[in-house]
Amino acid sequence: MSILVVGSVAYDTVETPFGKAERVLGGSASFFSVAASFFTSVNLVGVVGNDFGEKQLAAFRGRNIDLSGLERMDGQTFHWQGKYSYDLNSRDTICTDLNVFEFFKPKIPESYRKSELVFLGNIDPVLQLDVLEQVQKPQVVACDTMNFWIQGKPKELRRTLEKVDVLLVNDAELRQLSGEWNVIKAARAVRAMGPKTLVVKKGEHGVLMVGEESFAAPAYPLEAVFDPTGAGDTFAGGFLGYLAAAGNAKDETLRRAVIMGSTLASFCVEAFSLDRLLKLTRKEIDDRFRLFKRLTHFEDI
Amino acid sequence: MSILVVGSVAYDTVETPFGKAERVLGGSASFFSVAASFFTSVNLVGVVGNDFGEKQLAAFRGRNIDLSGLERMDGQTFHWQGKYSYDLNSRDTICTDLNVFEFFKPKIPESYRKSELVFLGNIDPVLQLDVLEQVQKPQVVACDTMNFWIQGKPKELRRTLEKVDVLLVNDAELRQLSGEWNVIKAARAVRAMGPKTLVVKKGEHGVLMVGEESFAAPAYPLEAVFDPTGAGDTFAGGFLGYLAAAGNAKDETLRRAVIMGSTLASFCVEAFSLDRLLKLTRKEIDDRFRLFKRLTHFEDI
Repeated sequence: MSILVVGSVAYDTVETPFGKAERVLGGSASFFSVAASFFTSVNLVGVVGNDFGEKQLAAFRGRNIDLSGLERMDGQTFHWQGKYSYDLNSRDTICTDLNVFEFFKPKIPESYRKSELVFLGNIDPVLQLDVLEQVQKPQVVACDTMNFWIQGKPKELRRTLEKVDVLLVNDAELRQLSGEWNVIKAARAVRAMGPKTLVVKKGEHGVLMVGEESFAAPAYPLEAVFDPTGAGDTFAGGFLGYLAAAGNAKDETLRRAVIMGSTLASFCVEAFSLDRLLKLTRKEIDDRFRLFKRLTHFEDI
Repeated sequence: MSILVVGSVAYDTVETPFGKAERVLGGSASFFSVAASFFTSVNLVGVVGNDFGEKQLAAFRGRNIDLSGLERMDGQTFHWQGKYSYDLNSRDTICTDLNVFEFFKPKIPESYRKSELVFLGNIDPVLQLDVLEQVQKPQVVACDTMNFWIQGKPKELRRTLEKVDVLLVNDAELRQLSGEWNVIKAARAVRAMGPKTLVVKKGEHGVLMVGEESFAAPAYPLEAVFDPTGAGDTFAGGFLGYLAAAGNAKDETLRRAVIMGSTLASFCVEAFSLDRLLKLTRKEIDDRFRLFKRLTHFEDI
């Protein structure tokens, strides 16, 4: 299956206890596309400003990423600035300059409309629904969202969720969306809103997938987490990329896809921006997948 | 192997968002012994006051638990009172009345001295070392500790750790003990202090075991966590009980032991005190162990 992804392409300025990176490539669609492109062809839809040049585009070139849907608009590219403390699970946003992203109305190129898997990145749920109306019925619709939309556009988000097969959220968002504290009860409530498969991202504590069955995976234990920015989008890219390449959403495939997403995310956090992902080889990915297997394996009694 | 456990036998008064229990059976050695007794014979060493009667002892009777080391002292039994909020990961201690536990000097009965596995519950590290001097060389020494001793008796604790094979701590204690934020670096630092195997308990986020290899296990996802009190000690009982019954500390055995500990702990939190553990059957344990296998299983690529 080919994947259509709609999301942000951005500049990030990030400070962690280990260093600072200024105006480096970021954005949900960037991390997602590069991660997914290890497995399948990706059709990217996003918007950048005049300040986004060939140097930045080079990250996407030579990969399985179609850029015909990357719109260029007069103005500056979306810029996010954040700072992490030693507890890399929490971060402070220092500024969010939406710039051209404020006026983003996704236009799906004709050549993208038959994409079999659609990933609706974290944008206004009204725009997410609009994207679905522009495509021919995809086999899998996956979606991300955030507290801003859960609180600000609850009705619109519910209308989008009715059309979604796989929802990726973090544990705090899941609790907010469902109004339930307990993750299992919360997952049941959200599954009743539409998405049959729920992927709950818990940062350094791993992932819990709730569908017909539940599947739990730890995060890969790293000695040096350098910058967590983009880990969630990279997870989504590895997860959905693997799923699209497998061409089915059977339980066993979904489980391996979670591990593949976690594998890609574990590389992402080893460096700023997409630096590690852009150097990554398929062999390194498969080797770490096998280490994940060893990390979690035990014999039945 | 038989197990010797030294720890507290206590009354707990616990309030959770779901109810309150007053002066019910608690204490690390109580939870530990009942959990471990599903797998092997347990030699308990602890102290209680005059107020600890036959009704409380009934919890231990008819199980594989030897009570010759349970000393009775004039005075009141140790009493702990705590309160949990909806986030069951954190709790407030309302009062800690040490009572007779303040004067506890573990005396190991002659019949216990050949115990092959020793579990030093969370007591003064000086007393922990004293216990080791009273026993014949056990095959495995396991140990728990807490922030109070890490901060208050660091040198004494280091002397005890030199004699320990398996250390069970939570992630905050691990960081405090090592002075390292990153769990993997922290684990390496603590392994250099003595314990070859480190079991890091992360509450609802599961367990990470670091030895020659690493092994990660999620907590069992429960729809209703009623009272987390004793979960860590119950984990230790299931973990070490399984290990003792297997009679070896091979990597594959340690991995299954972690799952067995997690299984026992998942039952513990379903009710106040030891209520659920005391009704538990070996079949229920084995069934949930297999659900754990299904929860975490994925096929290699």
